[in-house]
Amino acid sequence: MVDTVAIQGEAGSFSHAAALEAYGPGIRLVPCATFVELFRSVETGQATSGMVPIENTLAGSVHENYDLLSAHQLHVVGEAELRIRHCLIASPHVGRADVRRVASHPVALAQCRRFFTEHPELVAVPAYDTAGSVRDLMAGTVNAEAAIASRLAASLYGATILEEGLEDNAENYTRFLVVTRDPLHPAPGQASKTSLMFTLGSGPGTLHQALGVFAERGLNLTKIESRPLPGRPWEYLFYADVVDTPVSRIDEGIEALRGVAFGVRVLGTYPAR
Amino acid sequence: MVDTVAIQGEAGSFSHAAALEAYGPGIRLVPCATFVELFRSVETGQATSGMVPIENTLAGSVHENYDLLSAHQLHVVGEAELRIRHCLIASPHVGRADVRRVASHPVALAQCRRFFTEHPELVAVPAYDTAGSVRDLMAGTVNAEAAIASRLAASLYGATILEEGLEDNAENYTRFLVVTRDPLHPAPGQASKTSLMFTLGSGPGTLHQALGVFAERGLNLTKIESRPLPGRPWEYLFYADVVDTPVSRIDEGIEALRGVAFGVRVLGTYPAR
Repeated sequence: MVDTVAIQGEAGSFSHAAALEAYGPGIRLVPCATFVELFRSVETGQATSGMVPIENTLAGSVHENYDLLSAHQLHVVGEAELRIRHCLIASPHVGRADVRRVASHPVALAQCRRFFTEHPELVAVPAYDTAGSVRDLMAGTVNAEAAIASRLAASLYGATILEEGLEDNAENYTRFLVVTRDPLHPAPGQASKTSLMFTLGSGPGTLHQALGVFAERGLNLTKIESRPLPGRPWEYLFYADVVDTPVSRIDEGIEALRGVAFGVRVLGTYPAR
Repeated sequence: MVDTVAIQGEAGSFSHAAALEAYGPGIRLVPCATFVELFRSVETGQATSGMVPIENTLAGSVHENYDLLSAHQLHVVGEAELRIRHCLIASPHVGRADVRRVASHPVALAQCRRFFTEHPELVAVPAYDTAGSVRDLMAGTVNAEAAIASRLAASLYGATILEEGLEDNAENYTRFLVVTRDPLHPAPGQASKTSLMFTLGSGPGTLHQALGVFAERGLNLTKIESRPLPGRPWEYLFYADVVDTPVSRIDEGIEALRGVAFGVRVLGTYPAR
């Protein structure tokens, strides 16, 4: 069966590149305009899985997607890490010297600030999507001579890469979670990571106590995130990623967590990168 | 001496309302276009203090301002909590039945989604500022008959409140930090809160160990936030707010934290709300 993979954005986006890395070239892509649409397309079965960007090493967590993991009942079955490398892309008959206006998504433009400072003759043109800018460039429907997007976008739309590595900081990675309707049950003995959420009572030491159930068992917490609980001012929903130990003490840790936290929900257990 | 208080946004904004609550009516306001400008105006002495929104009970942390606290050397000397209550505001000669287009900042519009669903005849018009929309409405420079903003904006610009409490969720509060160039030294014995930041080594239990220095001393952690460390993928800068105990064990806790964490910086100690 062909994997149908939902992404937010157009073909050629960084999400598309992450999907290819996770599943190989044989996928059918379901491009979605918004993240809500991505979650719905997996829920309704229109796509068998979805690639959800959850964190970027420069911009931080994608909070909207943490909220969507909580609001929906999908399962995390994997993760992927993608190096974000921005390219200056133009139509094959456009030379570097012809470029004046450069279109891309505002986040991509912000990550290439030094490039624009070094080239004051260039004007940054905000657009709705990185890959969409390349497509529009080739269709002649955008008022710009170049776009900033992935290497994949250039090859998909038959455009030329004029420059590569435009980003200010090379340590630019995005981590994606793979979500599906059904949970995965990793083979025993396989190194695994578990994503889970919980809330806490107030008072001194409640978070310390919750994290203690993992620390005491040598379970490594690789990420913690908090989001507000609507309607309950200054209370939080916590999200944590925990790497299991070789002797698998994660189930024991989760059981112990249920004793000190409320509403513990396991989002998924999947092979650790 | 008159307090000069920097805010992001226009006179009549929620930040202005928070400044009035913190300092009383005798302040001179320094409206800033961006948060960076706000931090700079306090650094350069153009303003004696700044009101920095740090968290909203529905939208969550204002991550840009956590990053700015780290990038600048200002001190946190106080906090303020403001109930966010959205009003439908129009010019005095406009009646409720005349309203078709409603202008406001996208975040305010998003917090009044139910109001727009219940009134499908109304069109939401995104604008750069809540209070600025009321000012532009009165000047006739915006294509709308009403705006969504604070009660303060209506009275400042001589407009009329047509409806109040438009927000979907009444538990809508924003917490502000007050920043200045010099630190505050709260009187001993006064209930106080300390905002601090730190980074951690990797491996199991490092965050648990860091939080332990507070938990063991009965110091209550009211907020924890993490932000990515640029150039160091998957490492974080943590921000924590800690309430002192009646016998004041916070200095001891901070000393202990220096033993288990790196780059511990106290952003400020100030009276607890």
